[in-house]
Amino acid sequence: MKVLVLMSGGVDSTTCLAMMVEKYGKENVEALSMYYGQKHKKELECARKIAKYYDVSYQELDLSLIFTSSDCSLLEHSDKEIPHSSYKEQIDKSGEKPVSTYVPFRNGLFLSCAASIAISKGCELIYYGAHSDDSAGNAYPDCSLAFEHAMNQAIYEGSGHALTIQAPFVKQTKKDVVAEGLRLKVPYEMTWSCYEGGESACGKCGTCIDRKRAFMANGAVDPIPYVE
Amino acid sequence: MKVLVLMSGGVDSTTCLAMMVEKYGKENVEALSMYYGQKHKKELECARKIAKYYDVSYQELDLSLIFTSSDCSLLEHSDKEIPHSSYKEQIDKSGEKPVSTYVPFRNGLFLSCAASIAISKGCELIYYGAHSDDSAGNAYPDCSLAFEHAMNQAIYEGSGHALTIQAPFVKQTKKDVVAEGLRLKVPYEMTWSCYEGGESACGKCGTCIDRKRAFMANGAVDPIPYVE
Repeated sequence: MKVLVLMSGGVDSTTCLAMMVEKYGKENVEALSMYYGQKHKKELECARKIAKYYDVSYQELDLSLIFTSSDCSLLEHSDKEIPHSSYKEQIDKSGEKPVSTYVPFRNGLFLSCAASIAISKGCELIYYGAHSDDSAGNAYPDCSLAFEHAMNQAIYEGSGHALTIQAPFVKQTKKDVVAEGLRLKVPYEMTWSCYEGGESACGKCGTCIDRKRAFMANGAVDPIPYVE
Repeated sequence: MKVLVLMSGGVDSTTCLAMMVEKYGKENVEALSMYYGQKHKKELECARKIAKYYDVSYQELDLSLIFTSSDCSLLEHSDKEIPHSSYKEQIDKSGEKPVSTYVPFRNGLFLSCAASIAISKGCELIYYGAHSDDSAGNAYPDCSLAFEHAMNQAIYEGSGHALTIQAPFVKQTKKDVVAEGLRLKVPYEMTWSCYEGGESACGKCGTCIDRKRAFMANGAVDPIPYVE
């Protein structure tokens, strides 16, 4: 069976890629990455290198024009600052609303692009790395279990029953993602998560904080360098 | 309330646009069209003119790179011929499979792009022109009621409950679409449906046949010129 993996170059998607390569073999895995105007374009360089490391077919799409009207703090054209606190702290502050780094319907858009490409290339499954830490308190509603269920149904129906999606960690935490990745010897030193556009990871943004904690919770050390 | 209308320049979407302009006023309507590599690019010229006619905000996206691997007969790079028969005849011939003019997950992709833009622009509703003639026998599975339900749920969940979609004709036929459009005095002479890239509509492809029949069933004459 052929599968398509949504690939950001971060911890979650790289772990998903490793799982699919283990299960179906590299010749049956397609990786797909997106430029959408993010400040942290560096993740795309990482995605390219990781795809090369696993020797899988790789494709990149530019979706940045879709987000020109969005004021999401993650986007290059936005003046908003990226918050320096964990997602949980951001949600406790703002209530049950998406955080300022929520990119409007990003996962829905990425999965739909992936679906069009997957059907064209004869893939029967799309794999992606959403997990429950990201959807907690509605921080990223497009990472939730409810979204995953509905989107799977939409893709199954809209493809004429040819395609499904799976988010293997949707009920688990980033700690579980890293545990699986460590088992699979994922080259986490090649990954990038930080939302800021810097040379080294900032260590302060939500994704840096959550990433470091996930390694610590596994009794491991995150192998990438941090500014502090 | 602000709404976004998916706009192809054809009969169905133009009728949807007219309905939304009547209901919410032109200042609250955004129209969105897509170039996806279709042979019948002429529909985009029509979409632009129709948006101007209704004096609504209009945006175009280029999604053609997403379909470079598809062998759908509707696409410019495809060598496949566009069938010269109605959808019903095509389905009777091929069984319960998507027709050769099915563009992989096109409506899912369009609705997801529309969702990202709608959230950014403060729209609460996406309106689009799917109807039951197109989904009959699984011809276009992404025009079905089951797809519309699931995609609505996915967009509602993935937007943090900020956005829904509606396909007002999803349980009705193209005859009903034209009936509503005639009531609203839609300038159907400005619309384009034919799948071929010609100067005048071919009159032979599935969408030409179904369009002419829909006008006839309303005791009206389709105002566009046909080659035959």
